[in-house]
Amino acid sequence: MSQFDVLCIGNAIVDIIARCDEAFLVDNSIIKGAMNLIDAERAELLYSRMGPAIEASGGSAGNTAAGIASFGSRSAYFGKVADDQLGRIFSHDIRAQGVHFETRPLNGTPPTARSMIFVTPDGERSMNTYLGACVELGPEDVEADVVANSKVTYFEGYLWDPPLAKDAIRLCAAIGHKHGREMSMTLSDPFCVDRYRDEFLELMRSGTIDIVFANADEAKSLYQTDNFEHAVSQLRKDCKLTVVTRSEHGSVVVRGDERHDIDAIDIEEVVDTTGAGDLYAAGFLHGYANGQPLDVCGKLGSLAAGLVIQQIGPRPQLSLKDAARDAGFI
Amino acid sequence: MSQFDVLCIGNAIVDIIARCDEAFLVDNSIIKGAMNLIDAERAELLYSRMGPAIEASGGSAGNTAAGIASFGSRSAYFGKVADDQLGRIFSHDIRAQGVHFETRPLNGTPPTARSMIFVTPDGERSMNTYLGACVELGPEDVEADVVANSKVTYFEGYLWDPPLAKDAIRLCAAIGHKHGREMSMTLSDPFCVDRYRDEFLELMRSGTIDIVFANADEAKSLYQTDNFEHAVSQLRKDCKLTVVTRSEHGSVVVRGDERHDIDAIDIEEVVDTTGAGDLYAAGFLHGYANGQPLDVCGKLGSLAAGLVIQQIGPRPQLSLKDAARDAGFI
Repeated sequence: MSQFDVLCIGNAIVDIIARCDEAFLVDNSIIKGAMNLIDAERAELLYSRMGPAIEASGGSAGNTAAGIASFGSRSAYFGKVADDQLGRIFSHDIRAQGVHFETRPLNGTPPTARSMIFVTPDGERSMNTYLGACVELGPEDVEADVVANSKVTYFEGYLWDPPLAKDAIRLCAAIGHKHGREMSMTLSDPFCVDRYRDEFLELMRSGTIDIVFANADEAKSLYQTDNFEHAVSQLRKDCKLTVVTRSEHGSVVVRGDERHDIDAIDIEEVVDTTGAGDLYAAGFLHGYANGQPLDVCGKLGSLAAGLVIQQIGPRPQLSLKDAARDAGFI
Repeated sequence: MSQFDVLCIGNAIVDIIARCDEAFLVDNSIIKGAMNLIDAERAELLYSRMGPAIEASGGSAGNTAAGIASFGSRSAYFGKVADDQLGRIFSHDIRAQGVHFETRPLNGTPPTARSMIFVTPDGERSMNTYLGACVELGPEDVEADVVANSKVTYFEGYLWDPPLAKDAIRLCAAIGHKHGREMSMTLSDPFCVDRYRDEFLELMRSGTIDIVFANADEAKSLYQTDNFEHAVSQLRKDCKLTVVTRSEHGSVVVRGDERHDIDAIDIEEVVDTTGAGDLYAAGFLHGYANGQPLDVCGKLGSLAAGLVIQQIGPRPQLSLKDAARDAGFI
């Protein structure tokens, strides 16, 4: 029996969240809706221009791990924080959600990663990420027994930004596949896809990845096309199982000749889109690891994503298990 | 002309906020609705039992200073953080709100203060405060020119918990009164009143304090009475201007023979009561420093308090100036 349903691996980040108007993004050359990578100097500059903020543990795959645990599944996480106050906040929050998290924190500098997230009046989030201690995640952080005992290992495309994490991922893939497990990734961000297109395609075409998550922009970026259906048809060829989210238009799940078009849930007000994709993946993987049909997996994804965008912050403040029960899934 | 409308002085604290059920408070011997002082060891223990949290700058008088600035008045703040990540978050947030804050951070230990705030389903907050660097606030942190140039200096009764802050307050009172300014305090918490009853009464009766803020429980604790009107009549004798808040029953403002009973605003849902008293004081002092009649001051207090309890976190996420305009005050 597997010890974990899903192992998630990613950049361990504390989010610093504030509202801003559209002009702020333009004035500060922040690409709207994207993950903008920044260095320590620009982090200082942007923070000095940022309004009063709140802090919440984040990190794409960390949010997914937390969401999976909130649904009641067993999840684990690998990610590198520093041994500092933000690192202790990150570690507390993910463990308090019930996620196995034992990656050794970095002693000394750089500090724990943070992402300054600016939320515009339309609810869209624009992220500015200083990677900090994440650059130290490497193969020595792979807990082989956790990989071997997780039904699915899921990681962020963002892990191609730090220098050593990709080696950890390849090690995990070798261990996981040796034990008959599945490997999954999210393409993370259209600009991230642009940075690592060939490597991401190689991961899929070599069979290193069994399940790929993307949003429409990322899927189109991967194949450098404006045609969504063309991108989906390419993904169908390149990966065993493909899940593409389309914001308010729901999602598409494709496996061989099987295709499911899933609706988004009704939203009262989009407060903050941070974590939408991460929580969709959480819902989907919770269902998948528990043997649910693909359309149900997609609906669980829609539920979790729909809930997280109606609150501030990237992790659900209410129990997703309760939400799934209320929605009739249990 | 004065440079500042209101100078606020208090324990500089970062709030760590999570939801819990009623049983959690009982199981962990947390007095509901109170500010429970804790040491470093108990802070570790409670944090290990706390669920996933979010962080936000807090501290009673810090929230008041931020609220006053959000209304568009000029405020300053004295409070002691450490030179650490939480201290930088606190400093950023209060300055980003437009508050003058130049108290020198503590280099080394203890770290920046934090309060673990547990919010029960009824929206009530129960605070567990580790004072950390706040114990180092003292007379050397008094910026005499700021005190001399602030129409009102407002401080927390909580400042009687650390050892040296009361000396700073007495110094401020001497400077302020010498320059014809007014001194104001909040009684902070019924248990705090119980710890320092005689000293608080002496502050009022000696004329060190011109304006006192209290909620009903604190007022009753001060005079060890169950009778609200008796407490108000005592406060009327002991202080030039008295403001007593009564949660959903509004507030009472008394100056000599003048009395105003102010309604609370209508509330859709109490999400988190953290900051209610602090923001009431912000609204009141904003009005007061700008020469508004006492009933208008009270209504501005009701507005700010009513808004902050309908969100998570102790400082208003929306502009109070806009809220005051929308409510017809401007």
